[in-house]
Amino acid sequence: MSEKPNIYQLDKEIGNLKYTDLLPNTELNKAMHTTETFLKQLVNILLNYIKESNDRNEKVLHFYHPAEMKAMLDLDIPEKGLPLQKLIDDCFTTLKYQVRTGHPMFMNQLSCGLDVVSMAGEWLIATANTNMFTYEIAPVFILMETVVLEKMRQIIGWQGGDSILAPGGSISNLYAFLAARHKMFPTYKEKGLSAIKGQLVMFTSDQCHYSVRSCAAVCGLGTDNCVEVPSDKRGRLIPSELERLVLERKAKGDIPFFVNCTSGTTVLGAFDPIEEIADICQKYNMWLHVDAAWGGGLLLSKKYRHPRLTGIERADSVTWNPHKLMGTLLQCSTIHFKQDGLLISCNQMSAEYLFMQDKLYDVRYDTGDKVIQCGRHNDIFKLWLQWRAKGDEGFEKQIDRLMELAEYMVKKIKSMPDKFYLILEPEMVNVSFWYLPTRVRNMPHEKRLNILGEITPILKGRMMQAGTMMVGYQPLNDLPNFFRNIISSAAVTEGDIDFLLTEMDRLGHDL
Amino acid sequence: MSEKPNIYQLDKEIGNLKYTDLLPNTELNKAMHTTETFLKQLVNILLNYIKESNDRNEKVLHFYHPAEMKAMLDLDIPEKGLPLQKLIDDCFTTLKYQVRTGHPMFMNQLSCGLDVVSMAGEWLIATANTNMFTYEIAPVFILMETVVLEKMRQIIGWQGGDSILAPGGSISNLYAFLAARHKMFPTYKEKGLSAIKGQLVMFTSDQCHYSVRSCAAVCGLGTDNCVEVPSDKRGRLIPSELERLVLERKAKGDIPFFVNCTSGTTVLGAFDPIEEIADICQKYNMWLHVDAAWGGGLLLSKKYRHPRLTGIERADSVTWNPHKLMGTLLQCSTIHFKQDGLLISCNQMSAEYLFMQDKLYDVRYDTGDKVIQCGRHNDIFKLWLQWRAKGDEGFEKQIDRLMELAEYMVKKIKSMPDKFYLILEPEMVNVSFWYLPTRVRNMPHEKRLNILGEITPILKGRMMQAGTMMVGYQPLNDLPNFFRNIISSAAVTEGDIDFLLTEMDRLGHDL
Repeated sequence: MSEKPNIYQLDKEIGNLKYTDLLPNTELNKAMHTTETFLKQLVNILLNYIKESNDRNEKVLHFYHPAEMKAMLDLDIPEKGLPLQKLIDDCFTTLKYQVRTGHPMFMNQLSCGLDVVSMAGEWLIATANTNMFTYEIAPVFILMETVVLEKMRQIIGWQGGDSILAPGGSISNLYAFLAARHKMFPTYKEKGLSAIKGQLVMFTSDQCHYSVRSCAAVCGLGTDNCVEVPSDKRGRLIPSELERLVLERKAKGDIPFFVNCTSGTTVLGAFDPIEEIADICQKYNMWLHVDAAWGGGLLLSKKYRHPRLTGIERADSVTWNPHKLMGTLLQCSTIHFKQDGLLISCNQMSAEYLFMQDKLYDVRYDTGDKVIQCGRHNDIFKLWLQWRAKGDEGFEKQIDRLMELAEYMVKKIKSMPDKFYLILEPEMVNVSFWYLPTRVRNMPHEKRLNILGEITPILKGRMMQAGTMMVGYQPLNDLPNFFRNIISSAAVTEGDIDFLLTEMDRLGHDL
Repeated sequence: MSEKPNIYQLDKEIGNLKYTDLLPNTELNKAMHTTETFLKQLVNILLNYIKESNDRNEKVLHFYHPAEMKAMLDLDIPEKGLPLQKLIDDCFTTLKYQVRTGHPMFMNQLSCGLDVVSMAGEWLIATANTNMFTYEIAPVFILMETVVLEKMRQIIGWQGGDSILAPGGSISNLYAFLAARHKMFPTYKEKGLSAIKGQLVMFTSDQCHYSVRSCAAVCGLGTDNCVEVPSDKRGRLIPSELERLVLERKAKGDIPFFVNCTSGTTVLGAFDPIEEIADICQKYNMWLHVDAAWGGGLLLSKKYRHPRLTGIERADSVTWNPHKLMGTLLQCSTIHFKQDGLLISCNQMSAEYLFMQDKLYDVRYDTGDKVIQCGRHNDIFKLWLQWRAKGDEGFEKQIDRLMELAEYMVKKIKSMPDKFYLILEPEMVNVSFWYLPTRVRNMPHEKRLNILGEITPILKGRMMQAGTMMVGYQPLNDLPNFFRNIISSAAVTEGDIDFLLTEMDRLGHDL
């Protein structure tokens, strides 16, 4: 973004005014005029940002180290409030130095891109500024939740059941854990540890999201009792290993009760085999949770749903984050339960002062007593509006397109074996690979691994300093640092992927 | 809101277009034009909603029962996506039936009002659509967090320490509990229950927010081990009772380790005596958490801070929600720790793939490893911008004004003892009272209590059906249903309070 154009000047009269001149100042018409001018000026800045984020001639970011950035910016809170013009300047400057996560070349996270309709939904959510705990103060939004969540459960393959939106997939997974514990040990809620004799144990693959282990810490199980099951070379949990470990713990007198099955792992995008895991859960009476925070979006695709998510309807609970593959604005995470009534019996604290039964309307629509957060942000409208815009058909098309682009990228990488090394054929839009600088191209692969692990972060640093693109990297088990490219933005084209690979070579060949 | 004016028609050409014509469609200029037209039309609807919310001639809500509302609205997700004009209509209709939480006569929740600057911040947050886990993808916002949170800790009275923003006060309280457990029993994270011998016990007043008890359930303590300490008639925890109960549990061999002290209870707005509770915590080596989610805003007021929050600097952790008394947009909740380093050692799961140490920049700015949510919504910019707008001085003025208005309301209620019965002189902006319909005015108070408990929900129902105002009610211990009016919106004036009391009488005198 170039220097601030004059277009961002509020006219002098309004620019010198302060927040006290905006609504709710009681001179309604005058305050409305000021409010309107102020907000429209902000919208110009936001529109410009959106345009630049979609312009391939613009950079993804202008990188500065934290200390440099701090020195450049005026972030302090003043004793006396600043005039409206200064606030507009603040908005401009903030975006100027922000990373453009909606830029086609931002392929750094599971959530990329900017869905304009979902964003419009979030602007409306902000303006409505309400809390989701009761129908009383969020009637339309509460009804939207029931419609959308029921639809999602049907897509999973259930009739009935119950769901809730949570602040992120980690909290969704926590909900699943709590419900499982409550279902199996109903007195745990009141008695805690003394409700059961023996150690509860949960199981998950070594590729799972770290929130599953965090769950074990939060809930008092202890991470030692979150057993990591080995995965195969493609990152998928090995069912026979799961059974072996369950038996091992049972032999010790422990109580295996919960298995997390990941559908779309964070790094490799792998899908644990649900059917085989479900058989084991059934055999040993354990709760089956499917963490499809990442892979859930594929449920919308006839082409890609199977075999990846085959059997998901056998789960007791499913996490599915629309803010990832579906491109809904951050945050939008859902957790679904096959059994209705569990959320409320697990989480209800009977706060009489909030969830009275003698209200004017049917209080079964109040959701506050089902959740652990009390207040809940409105995360539904942006998803509902987006889904209205696309329809089922549009979402399917978009997701199929992302998968095709990932396949295109894999093909391109394989066509240049001197410059790139594909780590595996992915099941999802995660493309994992090493870039090979000139000096290692003729080395045996085993011998150059350490070098690759060292140059990957350096190349990432060069990308950020050039500002032309952002791709994530990480180590994984024995594999030293490698790139994991994510195609989850509807903005990406084949041309962008070509550019990415060319640019990587330009920036990294001499490393 | 009257019927949809023509102003909400997109011109015919654009109205028939679909989401695929918006950005990121690759015809940049054409798609930008469509995007701009679409968003500006949305902004007109939002501006109109803001204006109506501030117009005392407009209603707070148009009430419909859930079944009626469902029948009136088209909430279904279609197979094929809808045209842009239909999405604009959707936005209009949604707001038409939404409760205007920014209306001066909405005094129903702890969070009331619409702060326009904070809302502007939330629009920008939506447009930037980033996640707060790393400096890499949210550089400016991460720095803003460090500045604002450090300032808040200084206001509490600490040098150093650490803080994080959480999705609501309940999760903030959960963070405090986790940190306390981790500090006192560092092996609990790995070992769980087997880390200690004996039952952990926490203490809180019977007036506390229900999330404190929920914490006990979530973390595996069990609600039976969350001991409720009696409060006095004004809703404040009785320190001698706390000490008695601590000793009682100790005598049983249990391990008291955590005390929650509420600063601003949900119903009465009471402040537990921090100093006396801190003395007891010190004596018995227990963690002191101050839940100032509601009352924290008073820290900004020289006039009202003392004696209510005197001693807060002795706490080990403090919850403080700017989205309540400070009027920041939902959600904005903060949790602060006196000791630095605790958040990370407690919550870190060492997800190598996300929080690498070999990055380009100083990774101490990455926050993802400190939190239990992994991804984190950007909740800082709306607070930062709002604080820039008001300055410390403006915030103080606003909060003093809310307190003065509450005092005004108390005075008015006391001046009409035939029509209203004040339950107590509040310490905060919660005004608790019964409305007295004509037939009970000459009854002895004890005799009419049951009637008051019955008519209060009916009067609330009449308010909602008239749509002229919203005030919350609830029972509390022995007290049957009574009104709890909250003045936390900067829009409220003395005239609004006069209207509220007159309108209550108009709607309820014949009950």
